[in-house]
Amino acid sequence: MAPCLSFFFLFLFAFSAIPANSLPTFFPGAAYQSLIKQAKISKPKLPFKTHYFPQTLDHFTFQPKSSKLFYQKYLINSDYWRKGAPIFVFTGNEGNIEWFAANTGFMLDIAPKFKALLVFIEHRFYGKSMPFGKDSYQSAKTLGYLNSQQALADFAVLITSLKQNLSSEASPVVVFGGSYGGMLAAWFRLKYPHIAIGALASSAPILQFDKLIPWSSFYDAVSQDFKDVSLNCYQVIKGSWAELEAMSTQKQALAELSKTFRTCKSLHSTASARDWLRTAFVYTAMVNYPTKADFMKPLPAYPVQKMCKIIDKILSGATKLSRAFAAASLYYNYSRSENCFKIEHEVDGHGLHGWDWQTCTEMVMPMTCS
Amino acid sequence: MAPCLSFFFLFLFAFSAIPANSLPTFFPGAAYQSLIKQAKISKPKLPFKTHYFPQTLDHFTFQPKSSKLFYQKYLINSDYWRKGAPIFVFTGNEGNIEWFAANTGFMLDIAPKFKALLVFIEHRFYGKSMPFGKDSYQSAKTLGYLNSQQALADFAVLITSLKQNLSSEASPVVVFGGSYGGMLAAWFRLKYPHIAIGALASSAPILQFDKLIPWSSFYDAVSQDFKDVSLNCYQVIKGSWAELEAMSTQKQALAELSKTFRTCKSLHSTASARDWLRTAFVYTAMVNYPTKADFMKPLPAYPVQKMCKIIDKILSGATKLSRAFAAASLYYNYSRSENCFKIEHEVDGHGLHGWDWQTCTEMVMPMTCS
Repeated sequence: MAPCLSFFFLFLFAFSAIPANSLPTFFPGAAYQSLIKQAKISKPKLPFKTHYFPQTLDHFTFQPKSSKLFYQKYLINSDYWRKGAPIFVFTGNEGNIEWFAANTGFMLDIAPKFKALLVFIEHRFYGKSMPFGKDSYQSAKTLGYLNSQQALADFAVLITSLKQNLSSEASPVVVFGGSYGGMLAAWFRLKYPHIAIGALASSAPILQFDKLIPWSSFYDAVSQDFKDVSLNCYQVIKGSWAELEAMSTQKQALAELSKTFRTCKSLHSTASARDWLRTAFVYTAMVNYPTKADFMKPLPAYPVQKMCKIIDKILSGATKLSRAFAAASLYYNYSRSENCFKIEHEVDGHGLHGWDWQTCTEMVMPMTCS
Repeated sequence: MAPCLSFFFLFLFAFSAIPANSLPTFFPGAAYQSLIKQAKISKPKLPFKTHYFPQTLDHFTFQPKSSKLFYQKYLINSDYWRKGAPIFVFTGNEGNIEWFAANTGFMLDIAPKFKALLVFIEHRFYGKSMPFGKDSYQSAKTLGYLNSQQALADFAVLITSLKQNLSSEASPVVVFGGSYGGMLAAWFRLKYPHIAIGALASSAPILQFDKLIPWSSFYDAVSQDFKDVSLNCYQVIKGSWAELEAMSTQKQALAELSKTFRTCKSLHSTASARDWLRTAFVYTAMVNYPTKADFMKPLPAYPVQKMCKIIDKILSGATKLSRAFAAASLYYNYSRSENCFKIEHEVDGHGLHGWDWQTCTEMVMPMTCS
């Protein structure tokens, strides 16, 4: 018990020693409620009109069920569109399409210059584009139709039809995407060269398969992001795993951890805390934008730098785990809207659960195997 | 009745007037039985070893049934193979693979120069490569898995696996194909550029879709083949359709036609005779090789020329239909092995019936719509 108690003590001590004005805290119920409105990222209305396309369920067989249609959502912005000009298509990835449309300013920025039509297509089995409605995730009989090749064919069919409807067959199409959506953009250009003349694939790990890269590449890059800011920061985070692991063998560890991590409900396993921390560091590295943004969560500009600032400023007497928790809190509560942390019941609002299916069937990458 | 009788009379007259040594006839039971052995194309044993690959049923969904395996046949010739040298792959089309292997001498011809490994892969749902055994053609539930995209994926998976098994990942792969198989070869290079560095697509009508070409292109080319030999030949064949159509309104027409066409059983429709003639002219144009060969049927070198020779030499008093029949007989009975013609019951030995399914689902071309 002793190590646990001392950890807890040190943890509180460490934070109480930091002047409030030099290091904002992001714990649940922190005393900065007046800042909530300031910190929240304002969400302007998206400049898109919503459409639905009758899409074919299965593009690659002629089973009796294959020709079943579902409604695929897509967004259009024609504010800058001049007929004959290019069509810029965002190849939606694992989430509802508004989420990506709200976070892909680049396409809106360049649309006036190219007088381009902007089209954001939602990926099947995400957002509103559910082939079997609320039963879409019921079993492999329905989820079996969720994969990248069907998604690429969806894009091909929708784009071709849209161009015909707009009598704009001659308009060149360029596809854009990021992360998995970037892979889709790159693959689309490869597999449908007659439909897209180019692809901009951002943060697209198209080589993240088989033995093409070392298995550790993804996490090496995450670590490097923190190392680049501060070696101490990296070492504290790395050291926190051993501390957490040591706790897992102790009685009362879960009760202590639940207190330390300010959880809404008592934890059932230390693994939950581990995953919660890992998500914070990994996702923050993934969205380490130079501007404040609200992609995974509302975050300030350069959030990795901010996390390391928290870690580096905490007195060295604090445990590494407590410092890692303090940094992770930035990710989960930058908007200071949380009263406690739902560590084992975190609900992701982006409809990401289909990604688990994809990583277990097709997108089997070292970084996604868990 | 009179016109029919006179047609029949003229027909017999026409042929009896031709000296036997100047124009061989190819009617059933013709008096050249001694020539049978000479005329038959000898079929040497194919220089290939037969293998079977456990292939995935559905490459594009994760349905519970998708991962079912079937055995896909392929042939290997390693007589000239030197490890590291190229692998030449024939992308099999609508028929059993031996048929294509026996008629693709080009690959065998060039194998020694490149020290190449030769691989002939059978297309799913043809020959022995039946995903559901004898039930493969039972309904759309089974036939639904017969299409070009699944076939291309079969080739990709088989080639990749074969290269691994041979420890020859670095060997460049070139795909070869003709007709529909040529389309597959071209599409394979487009869709799987990381697997094939090149494709030789022979007689591949990859533009024969939608409104890319005039609907009459295919039959224009067939007509041109006959025109190039003799304008009279073309005009006789063209004129024979009108004669046949005129007959269809006459009583006793089917009995007359059955006699004229020397059918094994009485005809039930004039359309059968029309289709039988059309097949002869179209297929002969398709296999108008400069050497004697046995692709669709045993045929002499330059068979279109031979057909026109028959037509042009028949006295002008004969009906056009009788002359067209005489020419068509070359196609059906060059080996003089037939005692009568199975016009309504012609059994194609190449396992071509799957092609009907393909032309009704995916390969919808003007030439195949009937």
